Formats: sequence, C-alpha cells, structure tokens
Amino acid sequence: MRIAIPIFDGFTALDAVGPYEVLSRLPGAEVLFVAEQVGLKRTDTGMLSLQATHALDRLPHPDVLVAPGGPGVRGLLDDEALLGWIRAAHERSTWTTSVCTGSLLLAAAGVLNGQPASGHWLEMETLRRLGAQPTQARVVRAGKLITAAGVSAGIDMGLTLAALIADEQTAMAIQLAIEYDPQPPFHSGSPASAPADVLARVREAAARRARGGA
Amino acid sequence: MRIAIPIFDGFTALDAVGPYEVLSRLPGAEVLFVAEQVGLKRTDTGMLSLQATHALDRLPHPDVLVAPGGPGVRGLLDDEALLGWIRAAHERSTWTTSVCTGSLLLAAAGVLNGQPASGHWLEMETLRRLGAQPTQARVVRAGKLITAAGVSAGIDMGLTLAALIADEQTAMAIQLAIEYDPQPPFHSGSPASAPADVLARVREAAARRARGGA
Repeated sequence: MRIAIPIFDGFTALDAVGPYEVLSRLPGAEVLFVAEQVGLKRTDTGMLSLQATHALDRLPHPDVLVAPGGPGVRGLLDDEALLGWIRAAHERSTWTTSVCTGSLLLAAAGVLNGQPASGHWLEMETLRRLGAQPTQARVVRAGKLITAAGVSAGIDMGLTLAALIADEQTAMAIQLAIEYDPQPPFHSGSPASAPADVLARVREAAARRARGGA
Repeated sequence: MRIAIPIFDGFTALDAVGPYEVLSRLPGAEVLFVAEQVGLKRTDTGMLSLQATHALDRLPHPDVLVAPGGPGVRGLLDDEALLGWIRAAHERSTWTTSVCTGSLLLAAAGVLNGQPASGHWLEMETLRRLGAQPTQARVVRAGKLITAAGVSAGIDMGLTLAALIADEQTAMAIQLAIEYDPQPPFHSGSPASAPADVLARVREAAARRARGGA
C-alpha cells in the first residue's frame, strides 16, 4: 500500500501531516512525500520545510493519493507536470483524496468534474469554477474520491480513509494512539460557528492576501 | 516573539506541526525548528523528515519553548545538550510547553518537579518517575508551564497558548483559518472513550515496542 503525498513550495504543513500521521500507522502502509523534484519544500509560512523523497515520475501509480493544499496551490493550477501526474495516478488509484485547497488541484486536473467535493471554506467558489460541486462538509466521499475541508480536516479524513483501507477497529486504534480526543478551547472552527467579528476578520485577511497585501 | 520547537530523530511529526500550524499564524511570531545540529530530522515512522534550521546554541532564550514527543524521547532523557538547553531556556521563557511525551523531556530537564503535567496516556507513569504530577487532562497549565496530552492535543494546546500570547479573538481567527471544527468519525480518542478491545490492542502494541519488537 503506497500512499503518495505531493508537496510543493507554499503548501500548508498540517494539510499533509494530519493524514500522514494517521495513514503512516496503517499496517503495511508506506507514505511517500513526492514532488516534481526531490528536496526540501517550504511551507506557506516560510518557517518550516519538509523533505520530498521521491520524484513524481518515480511513483506514477500510488495506491492512494493525498493532495494537500495551501497558498502555493494557486501557482499550480496550470502546472501540467503535477496535474498530469494527478490525472494518471487517479486512473489507477484505489483512493484519490485531498485536504483543504488540495481539492483545487484535483479539480484542475479534471478528476472532480461534476463531483461533490469539499475544501477550505474560503475557496468553495474557486472549486465550483474548476468544475466540482462544492459541498461544505468535513469529509465528502464520491466513489473513490474523498475530499476534506480546511487544514485540520485531514485528520478526520485520514481516520475515515484508514477504516476504508483496513477496518474500523484499526482506525480506532490509530485514533487512540494519536489521542485524537479534540477539545478546542473555542467554538470558532467553521464559518457557521465562528462569531461574526471573527468571520469578518478572517475574510478581510484573505481578501488582503488575494490583493497581494501582507 | 520567538517560538522554538526542538526536533530530533524519532520525534512525532504532528506533535510539532500541530502547535506550529497555530502559533506561526500569530501576528509577529516566528517559529524556529531547532536541534543540536541543523539539518533533517527523521520522524518516528522513518517516512518523513523536517528541517531543523537553527542550532540550539544559536537560540538560547526563545520566548516560547514547545517540546514535541515521540519514541525518540527515550534516548534523550539523559542528553545534557538538549536538557541543559531546555533548563536554561525555561529560566527566561515566557511560556514553556510540551506535547505528548515532550513533557518527559521537560521533566528530565527538571522543570516539572512537583508540577501537574499532561502527556501521552501511555507514559503517565514515566512522567511520575521523572518528578512531575501526572494529570490526565487535554491541556494542563501550571504557571508558565503548559503541557498537552498525546500527539493531536498540540492543536488544542496551541490555541490555548495563542489566546494567552495574543487574545481570544486572535486565537478564534486562527481556529477558523485552519478550520478546526473536529469531527472524528469514531469515539476512540482517549483511554476513557475507546472500546476495551481497542484499548487492549494499543496497550499490547506499546508493550511489544517497549520489549524491542516491531
């Protein structure tokens, strides 16, 4: 069971590390961090780098594909090296999955056409423009496609996927091993639950970034 | 605001990346991955490496210290280079924190003596032997010490800490940005909630590892 996570400059670390932390604990699973070129890939904050150990062309047909997101996705929506790899990987994959704006990569590659899909709540319109049916749920399954909401949703998606790959007892054992008994100190994790001023603040920060500001 | 996360071979990725993902989004914060020697540090699974960008001796007095855990902790409980750095950093830190078995490092450095502290549920007895008062809560605060339970608890700890460093509205904005609205598909995240057979399975796997098995 080879699980490929493509990474790139500007990806969001937790998008990739959440599912990795769950799926790497599946018996017999091997998680591989792949990129167009092997080497260090810098996360969106610029403060952290993860090592891509395998070139995309060395791993054309992983059993499972997990596409993380992040601001770096924006520059990859017409990157045929990555999108072509996703398209070919999806043709023979057992599961094709994403976290956060990783679903934009799947959509840009054409594998989400007309399919219900989740993603970061700020980018649901982009997801629609790229041909998917945006669905604001934590984890959305459509056949062998599984897409998750923003950043931290990759942990929930990873556990869902672990149960599908192995069984529920194995997924529950992983949940216990990583002590995933979440107790957020605030109730502000989704646009539906966040206070209006917090929602406005995050929307405004996103709009500033989109205009090229800080 | 300089936030240091020491990493080492055999650390657990999510222990470090959970708090990083939260704290790196604090205005004016800089998260630095530190190690005795700069370079790639391999996580416990052997499948992923993160880059340590700063040597410990280049950053003797971070404002915030976040010690991650992982199986690699076991070989560091008498590592004076790391423990001495923790001890000296704690003397002048604003916050000294840990995730998972990172609290064993703080305890071995002597900074948890007699203090209530959390950690991975499988290692609470080790925490007691090292002089802390094990407290099975998700996030435990004692003065400027904040310790979290296993692996994924670092996200909750990070949000608690973000509110203390900045304010609650900022922490809530970060929670919304990373869409931390957890919806675990199973109820198996703590020894109290996991089914007995799942608990037994994880305990047995830990015992096998402790005996040096696979």
